[in-house]
Amino acid sequence: MTAEILTIGDELLIGQVINTNQAFLAQELNNIGIVVVRMNTVGDSMQAILESFADAWKRSNVVIVTGGLGPTHDDVTKKALCTFFNTELVSNVEARARIERFLQGRRMSWTPAAEEQTMLPKNATVIPNPIGTASGMLFQEDEKYFFALPGVPYEMKEIVRMSVVPYLSSKVTGSYVKHLTLRTTGIAESILAQQLGDLEPILQGAALAFLPSPRGVRLRITVLDRTSEVAGQRVREVEARIRGKVEKYIYGTGEEELEEVLGRILTEKGFTLAIAESCTGGLIADRITNVSGSSNYFERGVVTYSNKSKTDLLGVPTALIGAHGAVSRQVAEAMASGVRRMAGASIGLSTTGIAGPTGGTPEKPVGLVWIGYADRESCLAVRFNFGEGRILVKERASQAALELVRRKVLKLE
Amino acid sequence: MTAEILTIGDELLIGQVINTNQAFLAQELNNIGIVVVRMNTVGDSMQAILESFADAWKRSNVVIVTGGLGPTHDDVTKKALCTFFNTELVSNVEARARIERFLQGRRMSWTPAAEEQTMLPKNATVIPNPIGTASGMLFQEDEKYFFALPGVPYEMKEIVRMSVVPYLSSKVTGSYVKHLTLRTTGIAESILAQQLGDLEPILQGAALAFLPSPRGVRLRITVLDRTSEVAGQRVREVEARIRGKVEKYIYGTGEEELEEVLGRILTEKGFTLAIAESCTGGLIADRITNVSGSSNYFERGVVTYSNKSKTDLLGVPTALIGAHGAVSRQVAEAMASGVRRMAGASIGLSTTGIAGPTGGTPEKPVGLVWIGYADRESCLAVRFNFGEGRILVKERASQAALELVRRKVLKLE
Repeated sequence: MTAEILTIGDELLIGQVINTNQAFLAQELNNIGIVVVRMNTVGDSMQAILESFADAWKRSNVVIVTGGLGPTHDDVTKKALCTFFNTELVSNVEARARIERFLQGRRMSWTPAAEEQTMLPKNATVIPNPIGTASGMLFQEDEKYFFALPGVPYEMKEIVRMSVVPYLSSKVTGSYVKHLTLRTTGIAESILAQQLGDLEPILQGAALAFLPSPRGVRLRITVLDRTSEVAGQRVREVEARIRGKVEKYIYGTGEEELEEVLGRILTEKGFTLAIAESCTGGLIADRITNVSGSSNYFERGVVTYSNKSKTDLLGVPTALIGAHGAVSRQVAEAMASGVRRMAGASIGLSTTGIAGPTGGTPEKPVGLVWIGYADRESCLAVRFNFGEGRILVKERASQAALELVRRKVLKLE
Repeated sequence: MTAEILTIGDELLIGQVINTNQAFLAQELNNIGIVVVRMNTVGDSMQAILESFADAWKRSNVVIVTGGLGPTHDDVTKKALCTFFNTELVSNVEARARIERFLQGRRMSWTPAAEEQTMLPKNATVIPNPIGTASGMLFQEDEKYFFALPGVPYEMKEIVRMSVVPYLSSKVTGSYVKHLTLRTTGIAESILAQQLGDLEPILQGAALAFLPSPRGVRLRITVLDRTSEVAGQRVREVEARIRGKVEKYIYGTGEEELEEVLGRILTEKGFTLAIAESCTGGLIADRITNVSGSSNYFERGVVTYSNKSKTDLLGVPTALIGAHGAVSRQVAEAMASGVRRMAGASIGLSTTGIAGPTGGTPEKPVGLVWIGYADRESCLAVRFNFGEGRILVKERASQAALELVRRKVLKLE
């Protein structure tokens, strides 16, 4: 089964927006064994949209269109769908009921734009959008499926995960693709490749992709086989062989972020965490609290950007900062033990460093970060150099800090 | 003059790589007045590549192809170019000399892969690649230009900036495109459209795109005109007419985030800010500290997730939380004035709400957030409902909180 992805929007053609919808859809389709053969982007032009509809529908079983379903004047996708599927716009009862509920939930009133959003092509099956007013649509002919979805990424992703993927999964026959992503952190791509060594005996016909990011390198295993079961079994075998070589760097699998893994570990152990951040500026607390249920183990965080706040909120002695500087092992340790004590938490975590671009010196360059950790038994700090780029330094420091807690709590190495 | 961008590579079709080349090329072409009408992505398949070549070359004056020029087995672009332009691969003297210099400069030896890189279609004009071994190519027919460039982003970008853009600029006659993006927040796309009303007298031939995101709706103005100056002038006129209607929702232009705008305002006024976050969990502090120089106005932040921490760190009376609940106007106000007082800052900002997915009740549903603000003269809290989705609620609340401070400091409305 092959698919084509069409993204619609002038903002894409002028390069204002990077097309992340394409990659997301491609991954989701590949995951259920549907091969994407082409991706096409056109502007909000009726003629170009109709041409791209016709080309894609002629070639492929599955077509997914995103964009151009909003209520504003530049959105022509719905009209193009009517022309292409030879139908007309009617006010859809199901969509109307959903939009009414949606607006009521937000205490928002009914507007002409909302009315416009109830208008859908007569022969389309409505696909509900749980987090927005623009509905998705499905047109089906024989064994062919044409989806039209909103272009706003978070709405589109929600609809795809909730409705499109489950629906198409049930239609797929033929080869099955299975993927598994192992998430590593604290090791560079090149060192990881070195430690894995010869890949052939590990992979035995599977494919392995190295996907680096500021949070670490993800290893994606891909296996194609006749049945879902065999493909899944082979993936697990490859996983076991990779873990045999680099287990200690792997903190999770799939889409799971380190803060989710850590949240589960803290919950299991019954530990609580308090955080004192300087250079990471709240990013660690933000990540921790992205996880539902984090209030069970996250007691408090403080962002002590000024020296005064380090003394006021954490009891770091002014003299200690004077003697060693705010970016030092001693201050990192005092921050971690201070926040732990103040909060009455099991674990204290701290960061202090130079995020840049200014503030660096030859002895303490931009990118230098001390991460402090304190629990009942120990208090320590680890020195890192995360290179340049303010947001990159914050991102890398937040990951290293969470990983430090994971390793300490699990008593790894 | 219109252009099409073709990106080639299986890694794009499986969604492993996000296609940033497209957006870069689209921006560069638009900047010199060439209108991109279509972007297409195919895999390393001869048939699909040839079809997409033919379609694009039929429709547009400029075609830019990236990817598939490397020495590895799956790179079929060069063969496709030979078939399409009816020519053959020959070892190119100019390319050979350049690759030799390139490898010598890196003390690397000549390999079969390097030999392969000297082989180029006979009738192509070679475009030098200053930072890699794969050459770019130009095929010209009458007033039409077909470029084939390597897919590695930094090599492609270098070639485009050094050679492709200067070359095409000299060929462009006719129109210039100018864009301006106005960033709004606190108003839904549909309400914004309503308040703007009839767009014709505002736009007078310009185009306007509505680009929604969790942080607000961006309005992108596009004007096409004979000279860069006239196009720029018309953009500014459209901007003025839009501001005349919805000025109060516009916090910035271009790529500027609200935290940068607010940082500039706080610096100008000489104000300092302290933040107490509950449901946003550190996200506001994180955004504030993403801005270089924020240590000048950001004194401290606290993430008071537990009730105890609200009392300990902000002096919110236990009785107040008992009487009204942690998610209430009273507690939001007490948090804002508490953090302001504790920090000795000009402004205190607070959030308390229910990010979900659990913890909602009929009276206090998921998405309910109180945002508190305190300065020397006033203390208040505003109630919002940000809908569902934990990360979305945090994102929207952080934006509304920063916007509240911007409006209060600028004494808007």
